[in-house]
Amino acid sequence: MKAVLVNCTLKGSPEPSNSATLAGVVTDELRGLGVSVQEFRLADLTLDHGVETQMSDADEWPRVHDAIVDAAMLVVTTPTWVGRPSSYAQQMLERLDAMIAETRGDGEPITWGKVAGVVVTGNEDGAHHVISEISGGLVDIGFTIPGQAWTYWNRGPGPGPDYSQTSAGHEWSAETGRTMARRLHAVAQALAPLREPA
Amino acid sequence: MKAVLVNCTLKGSPEPSNSATLAGVVTDELRGLGVSVQEFRLADLTLDHGVETQMSDADEWPRVHDAIVDAAMLVVTTPTWVGRPSSYAQQMLERLDAMIAETRGDGEPITWGKVAGVVVTGNEDGAHHVISEISGGLVDIGFTIPGQAWTYWNRGPGPGPDYSQTSAGHEWSAETGRTMARRLHAVAQALAPLREPA
Amino acid sequence: MKAVLVNCTLKGSPEPSNSATLAGVVTDELRGLGVSVQEFRLADLTLDHGVETQMSDADEWPRVHDAIVDAAMLVVTTPTWVGRPSSYAQQMLERLDAMIAETRGDGEPITWGKVAGVVVTGNEDGAHHVISEISGGLVDIGFTIPGQAWTYWNRGPGPGPDYSQTSAGHEWSAETGRTMARRLHAVAQALAPLREPA
Amino acid sequence: MKAVLVNCTLKGSPEPSNSATLAGVVTDELRGLGVSVQEFRLADLTLDHGVETQMSDADEWPRVHDAIVDAAMLVVTTPTWVGRPSSYAQQMLERLDAMIAETRGDGEPITWGKVAGVVVTGNEDGAHHVISEISGGLVDIGFTIPGQAWTYWNRGPGPGPDYSQTSAGHEWSAETGRTMARRLHAVAQALAPLREPA
Repeated sequence: MKAVLVNCTLKGSPEPSNSATLAGVVTDELRGLGVSVQEFRLADLTLDHGVETQMSDADEWPRVHDAIVDAAMLVVTTPTWVGRPSSYAQQMLERLDAMIAETRGDGEPITWGKVAGVVVTGNEDGAHHVISEISGGLVDIGFTIPGQAWTYWNRGPGPGPDYSQTSAGHEWSAETGRTMARRLHAVAQALAPLREPA
Repeated sequence: MKAVLVNCTLKGSPEPSNSATLAGVVTDELRGLGVSVQEFRLADLTLDHGVETQMSDADEWPRVHDAIVDAAMLVVTTPTWVGRPSSYAQQMLERLDAMIAETRGDGEPITWGKVAGVVVTGNEDGAHHVISEISGGLVDIGFTIPGQAWTYWNRGPGPGPDYSQTSAGHEWSAETGRTMARRLHAVAQALAPLREPA
Repeated sequence: MKAVLVNCTLKGSPEPSNSATLAGVVTDELRGLGVSVQEFRLADLTLDHGVETQMSDADEWPRVHDAIVDAAMLVVTTPTWVGRPSSYAQQMLERLDAMIAETRGDGEPITWGKVAGVVVTGNEDGAHHVISEISGGLVDIGFTIPGQAWTYWNRGPGPGPDYSQTSAGHEWSAETGRTMARRLHAVAQALAPLREPA
Repeated sequence: MKAVLVNCTLKGSPEPSNSATLAGVVTDELRGLGVSVQEFRLADLTLDHGVETQMSDADEWPRVHDAIVDAAMLVVTTPTWVGRPSSYAQQMLERLDAMIAETRGDGEPITWGKVAGVVVTGNEDGAHHVISEISGGLVDIGFTIPGQAWTYWNRGPGPGPDYSQTSAGHEWSAETGRTMARRLHAVAQALAPLREPA
């Protein structure tokens, strides 16, 4: 099976991304289960604004789109800013919006039977809301969200350290992330027949 | 297969419930697919506040809890008040919170492999947020949310008619509700092996 | 000036309430500024469900309603359950909904010129979302939310201790709470002319 | 008094913006009250991602930042995409995040005494949530949100027309927008002393 990781950090390569570090626990576990994972860091791409799959010749979203169409799983990882998903995470939802109208030969949406989960880091409270916002948007677009297909890290109250600045709480986030990977994998396997047009 | 419908209207029986009327489209479709549906209207029950499964001798939540444990699907229907899920919907999430700690013989949560969806009516804007809030909470607790497992109705902008006061838009909400039922049913069927402890 | 504190803990008296403990920092600071504070714990009242000011003869909401009408400030304190405001907090918003239609002699809403803020505790992430949800609802109903009129406490990631079980982070929450009280007081004073019907 | 309008449409000039059209009702009313309004359309600017006021030499955010620092009022207008504020609206919150650390001579935040409101259009349900998300973020950053300082338009259920494609409901949105302008103006006037460092 194939998975796509979309990293919505505000920082371009080669700056380290806290959310990518935590997401690595999830992708490592997925790879151990035999899943191949393709990663995109949106800050490194030329990404137009809009709600169509291709907005201009320079627009690199179609590469992300095609990888998602080809995969069984989507993992989104984002920082928390002002308690909310990053602007790149919302831009991803806007670009995915076009998928609602894309259907297969049997009339089902192109996302039917695909699963998704969310990984969040932040220097402050907000992760559960970020997970709900992104999961809610992905359900609208047609992805299935397996139970407990998320993990997160922050250390409050108030503005605290970044994930990379402490090891406090890392084990909980990692164990929750490994569980997330197993949940995504089990549901993606069970839904394989739904991903085949009738 | 079995489904449980939890109706979170503020109104007790026999007052008509707009959200129950729209949810009827979903339960009719489920019954046509061979699913038996048990309905609970929280306003008609003696329902304690808290985060345990049984809070007092008089507390009737255990009946709802046991029906959910016994079912493959949960359908939640709620009105929109001040743009948010009803207080009964939040009370349901609080009571379901105890399920996070309930595990099966194989260590998986008791909710593993169960699916859920949300039906919303309102006299104003807010449905997508209500769906995200309840779906997000149910994912935390362990339910799987199939893609597009929701329907809603409202007619804005601003305070508008109740669902029962007009027929405008009913056909879209009903068609979306029938799709929701088919999505719930297909994913619940595919996940049947996950509901059996290893 | 007068303030009303509405405590939305799920626990009835005399059980200790974590959110009430943190809210005490805010009310102490308000009292030091000469504000009289009347407190209601919703779990101790007979509180009907609905969106009218008085739902039955036994309904005790009218006492809360009348105190809010008589005050310049509303402080709401709530725990975080499943990442969201408590069911009592939502029930409060539903009951306040009736105030939208209550107007003064000059046609302005009865809430015009009143200020509000939110205090949140939890054993897990979710506070900023709880603050946004309640503040957003109160803005709909007509309250003015001063900048940074909130404080919170939780200690993640994952399920952590209750506020009363540790002192970690208490000083940040207390200092933020004292700032909240000063913000509420300054804006409430400045808006005094708006609270007088023209 | 001065106001800044930040338009978060995904569309660059000269494409018409539905949210700008509805926001025009608000800015017209503000101008009638003697307020000068400066408008920025984020899609027309070179806007870096990040949480600092100036991210690069080419970055045009500092122009928006300086105008907001110089104004008493901020009006944000955004479309609804996938039920949420646009990616530009979130990018605005991320850039405003740096203001939390900017203080005046008397130690108060640079946003102290400034007011803000939100105008939303969409082709589907979601406006109240968009208003809460943006208002909640702005309260975090230090803006004061006057009661009912918002207006919106959408026409559901389900995907419906754009604002410009019908006149249904426009009068409610316009009247609500004029009220919003008067609320912003009255509170901004009352808070003038708070905007002067002690």
